[in-house]
Amino acid sequence: MELEKIYAPVQEDLNKVRDILKSISHVDFNWLSNQLSYVVKETGKGIRPALTLLTGMSYKYNLTYLLPMAVSVELMHTATLIHDDTIDKALTRRGKATINSLWGDEIAILMGDYLFAKAGEFVSDTQTPRVIKLFSQTLGIISSGEIIQFRSAFKLNHSHDNYLRRIYSKTASLFSLATQSGAILSQAPEETVEIMKEYGDNLGIAFQIVDDILDFTSTEDAMGKPVGSDLIQGTLTLPAMMLMERHPANNPVQRMFETGDKSNIAKAIEMVLDSTIIDDCYKTASEYSKRACENLNQLPQTVSRNALYELADYVVKQGT
Amino acid sequence: MELEKIYAPVQEDLNKVRDILKSISHVDFNWLSNQLSYVVKETGKGIRPALTLLTGMSYKYNLTYLLPMAVSVELMHTATLIHDDTIDKALTRRGKATINSLWGDEIAILMGDYLFAKAGEFVSDTQTPRVIKLFSQTLGIISSGEIIQFRSAFKLNHSHDNYLRRIYSKTASLFSLATQSGAILSQAPEETVEIMKEYGDNLGIAFQIVDDILDFTSTEDAMGKPVGSDLIQGTLTLPAMMLMERHPANNPVQRMFETGDKSNIAKAIEMVLDSTIIDDCYKTASEYSKRACENLNQLPQTVSRNALYELADYVVKQGT
Repeated sequence: MELEKIYAPVQEDLNKVRDILKSISHVDFNWLSNQLSYVVKETGKGIRPALTLLTGMSYKYNLTYLLPMAVSVELMHTATLIHDDTIDKALTRRGKATINSLWGDEIAILMGDYLFAKAGEFVSDTQTPRVIKLFSQTLGIISSGEIIQFRSAFKLNHSHDNYLRRIYSKTASLFSLATQSGAILSQAPEETVEIMKEYGDNLGIAFQIVDDILDFTSTEDAMGKPVGSDLIQGTLTLPAMMLMERHPANNPVQRMFETGDKSNIAKAIEMVLDSTIIDDCYKTASEYSKRACENLNQLPQTVSRNALYELADYVVKQGT
Repeated sequence: MELEKIYAPVQEDLNKVRDILKSISHVDFNWLSNQLSYVVKETGKGIRPALTLLTGMSYKYNLTYLLPMAVSVELMHTATLIHDDTIDKALTRRGKATINSLWGDEIAILMGDYLFAKAGEFVSDTQTPRVIKLFSQTLGIISSGEIIQFRSAFKLNHSHDNYLRRIYSKTASLFSLATQSGAILSQAPEETVEIMKEYGDNLGIAFQIVDDILDFTSTEDAMGKPVGSDLIQGTLTLPAMMLMERHPANNPVQRMFETGDKSNIAKAIEMVLDSTIIDDCYKTASEYSKRACENLNQLPQTVSRNALYELADYVVKQGT
């Protein structure tokens, strides 16, 4: 199923989110204005704002609060990507030159800060201290998680638990903010908020596992960044961990991390593709996707609930 | 008058602010915990949290909200300093090695983000959407101001208006957040909030002008960073602008900016000290300090009002 179809119940309001995102580039300093419009022009698949709007249908769909919340999660996402790219010295993202590669690390740092500020402004428009606090806590989880990831780059002793914690911080925490805030802002009962939290937590994990798979199986054209980027950054993802577990003596991931010799990347990708690792990773992702939906059946049967099921299905079929 | 005496009405609660700041370093990741305790150990003069607490005495002194607000302004200040030092490649701050010089730019970026998040968490504890929005707007003003400052580094065509706008963004906006939020959280009438905003805006400008003076007149020991740092960064401050205006043909500031030859710095400092520039800058700072207090007389005669007068006086006497 296509994403557009899944988004149908909220498509009109998602367009409003995009318009608001574009409008933040209207500042009275020309140069910054141009930069900002570059940043907000390409906003990815919009899965995070879509989650806020869809879960915002849990009870009373209140666009006055849901719209700034949806804008806010997307802006926080964009800001963290800009800082991540700066840290990773990444050259491309979504097929476009990164901010750091275009205007330098200094501007990228400040641009990220500016977008955090804008995200904070929008979340304050929800007038809801609970989601505002959740918003800040999520940023704390993401940035401390990135510190841990940065510190553990090129290290080989990662457990699966470490990996799950890492991708929770990096991705699932923001999915969880998106889904919880939707439910809270729709004034849904606590049980529903809890179900939406579970959904966001687990869908985020599934999403990141698939993203980590695609780093091995996809193409530079499709991803808009080089294949094997994670290995280049020294980030040990699930496929790489499985490869190491299956070839403990000596394998290209270990050689790459220990020597920095990038010729090992092609070999690692080849070995992963020649094994059942990708299938096994998709299975793990599917388990999290199922877990995401485990308690959705306790909710009323609505178009938005249906869209959440479909989205969970969509996420684990990317690249297959 | 000493700062401790001025702070007396809120000293006990300022100590609580310091304790809370120290407590944020308790995280379950040892390495990060050690870093954080390094960051929060030395918190400067605490003028921003003091302003929040003092203006928080405007009406109903409500520590439940004022305490997290005071912590929040100090954390935002610390986070922006960490990012600024990273951008400026500064080696020392307050006499200690900077985060970027100790652990690299990557950690400094993420550490700043983490502290923004913590600041956001504390401000959300005020349960007051109006100050939360003000908080985010202030971060937006600071970061976009830094972008403008970075873009205009080593450029010579600055007007005094440009300079004032720059130091408003950089310093006065946060002073203003501190004083406005104090008044708002004490449920003071709108007229009082406006008077406190005026106080914060103008005191911040006065404070930054004096800071810019000290970069010429102070010592590395007293400042904890090299003399002439602003010139090294290509930042045109009031004393430097006045020097250029008085020697338009050819002067060391212009030579330094055009050639990057740092030997001009000592010459620039010498010329500034041999002129009336420093006196004239102090006069300008004093005007802003007076303007800060202009409408304080409309407020009831309290110990906190008195402290605000004394603080305005203290700020423009630093280094004299």
